[in-house]
Amino acid sequence: MNSFIVMDILKSALQYEDTIHFEIGQPDIPPSAKVKEALKTAVEKNLFSYTQSFGIKSLRSLIAKNYKEEYGVDIEASQVLLTPGTSGAFLVAYSIALRHGQKLALSDPSYPCYKNFAHLLDIEPIFFDIGRENNYQLRVQDIKDKQFDALQISSPSNPVGNIYDKNNLKELIRFCDKKDISFISDELYHGLSYDLKANSALEFSENVFVINGFSKYYCMPGLRLGWLIVPKKYLRSAEIVAQNLFISAPTLSQYGAIEAFDKKYLKSTRSEFKKRRDYLYGELSKLFNIEAKPDGAFYLWADISKYSDNSFEFSKRLLRDKHVACAPGIDFGKNKTSKFVRFAYTRDIEHMSEGVERLKSYL
Amino acid sequence: MNSFIVMDILKSALQYEDTIHFEIGQPDIPPSAKVKEALKTAVEKNLFSYTQSFGIKSLRSLIAKNYKEEYGVDIEASQVLLTPGTSGAFLVAYSIALRHGQKLALSDPSYPCYKNFAHLLDIEPIFFDIGRENNYQLRVQDIKDKQFDALQISSPSNPVGNIYDKNNLKELIRFCDKKDISFISDELYHGLSYDLKANSALEFSENVFVINGFSKYYCMPGLRLGWLIVPKKYLRSAEIVAQNLFISAPTLSQYGAIEAFDKKYLKSTRSEFKKRRDYLYGELSKLFNIEAKPDGAFYLWADISKYSDNSFEFSKRLLRDKHVACAPGIDFGKNKTSKFVRFAYTRDIEHMSEGVERLKSYL
Repeated sequence: MNSFIVMDILKSALQYEDTIHFEIGQPDIPPSAKVKEALKTAVEKNLFSYTQSFGIKSLRSLIAKNYKEEYGVDIEASQVLLTPGTSGAFLVAYSIALRHGQKLALSDPSYPCYKNFAHLLDIEPIFFDIGRENNYQLRVQDIKDKQFDALQISSPSNPVGNIYDKNNLKELIRFCDKKDISFISDELYHGLSYDLKANSALEFSENVFVINGFSKYYCMPGLRLGWLIVPKKYLRSAEIVAQNLFISAPTLSQYGAIEAFDKKYLKSTRSEFKKRRDYLYGELSKLFNIEAKPDGAFYLWADISKYSDNSFEFSKRLLRDKHVACAPGIDFGKNKTSKFVRFAYTRDIEHMSEGVERLKSYL
Repeated sequence: MNSFIVMDILKSALQYEDTIHFEIGQPDIPPSAKVKEALKTAVEKNLFSYTQSFGIKSLRSLIAKNYKEEYGVDIEASQVLLTPGTSGAFLVAYSIALRHGQKLALSDPSYPCYKNFAHLLDIEPIFFDIGRENNYQLRVQDIKDKQFDALQISSPSNPVGNIYDKNNLKELIRFCDKKDISFISDELYHGLSYDLKANSALEFSENVFVINGFSKYYCMPGLRLGWLIVPKKYLRSAEIVAQNLFISAPTLSQYGAIEAFDKKYLKSTRSEFKKRRDYLYGELSKLFNIEAKPDGAFYLWADISKYSDNSFEFSKRLLRDKHVACAPGIDFGKNKTSKFVRFAYTRDIEHMSEGVERLKSYL
């Protein structure tokens, strides 16, 4: 297993009081006031027991309802498994979709923990390059000749920040359905898209594993609450793995999240991140080559090869000399990643503009 | 992987409004008032971000200090890894102590999730029987001729409720040290012992993995917060696994737990559970044969063979006919477990005495 480098960078970044944070993949906005009120009420009501392994029914029903409202898809509350962060959801999905020694297909670059979860569970990750040539998306034509047992994508994607085209997503899912390959869709950044809306994999098949959570759009990362939409045929397997793996997700977080679907609050969060995206994309485009469309999540994938061919050294020196933290591309794979750096626009424009000034003086 | 049957029983038990709960392995006492205050303050202060992977320093220092006060052992705060429940601690410990295909030695009976974590990580669990003949404890003489790579015990134990003798524990650890076998000690029920005190494995070696958490003695199960004391040579490996596996433990729970070492509260909790133990042991001894010493945790391991040789059927019928829930022995292994049932004394005496009456009318 490899280090999750951005967590190491974060640790170093915290040594300086004046660090500019472009490395952090979490919002700086507190959750909805209603969530905070619900958390305090839950404390008052002594809600400190474990819940059922799948989580409390009221929240699972709200999540199911949200799929109907947002995507027009019908899922049952019984398919919603609440997990300790999306990390827990990945462990469950991989455990039930794959056996030891089987192969999980991922894009390169992609979120580094995917492959590390696989290593942990004795599953073999295999990689397909994404880049300008395929619009930073996996396509059936690029993957169809290799053997694997599950395919996982993220859209809006980490680290690239783009969104899968509807038709391409549909074709990938159909291909997997036909070939009996499990399709796992990381939709954690849904809601954080600014010009177009991301499609849920559930729009195209009932037979997909969909992962989402409250850490990004809902601004509750520290509450460690995610969810997995479990295909019906795997419900019992998922329950067995969840019972054993984590008993149940954090209880207070579950009661707090009941208030998370606060539409006014979510609209204002999205609008704030859009402003930040527009600002940082505007500024960084002048300094770096940014090929991937900055559709969503809160990341920009910047080609730094004008300045360096070693993104890790570039990031370390930038942090040491200018106290500006960013995530080196090599955290996310091997495909040209030494030429790329991920910038997160998770802080306000004032903070970022100081970072942009320091960057300019550094380059 | 097998079902964690007690969680299934719990689910069925919740169907009836008048269920008597002898199945639940969690306290019904709310956490210290100071913990509740700290949780609400943390909500007010918007402490919703991820923490460092190892957790917040203030809490880790308090845990280290507690080892000095309770056991006279020196550990550094840097060795304390905060995890999402002890479940997270087991995943980290097994991942760094063992490689795929290696062997983990466990007692039979033991906590069912141990073996299931092992299966998940492609580690092979092997079992040694415990029973009256060895005082319900693993001993060097019983295990020394078999090959394995890690050994795990729990004391006070789940499901048996007894405590390892100091000398026996020391000998087991010395044996493992000499043979380069990782020793993993589940100390989650420390504090909940009523006549004698359990020893920490850290009293006998620096080279052991010690797991504990806030779910039992500190009465905060739903906060999902555990810890692992990591031997110094594994610190970096543990950090890498934790970063990937769960990013960080729930943030509010960490801030709440700062107030958990509230000695007056803990003394009253222990005294309450001692009363319950004395009551239930007194009553059940008249109905069943209870061989294992009821030293601690909050479990009694009752031999039901006077009435049935199928503990699963016995438990299911008892629940269906009398709405009394208990954990069938077969959840915990294969060694005579169809003759045993685990009774938890996690509810007050009034609740339990109703259960005892129903049991009497059932038998």
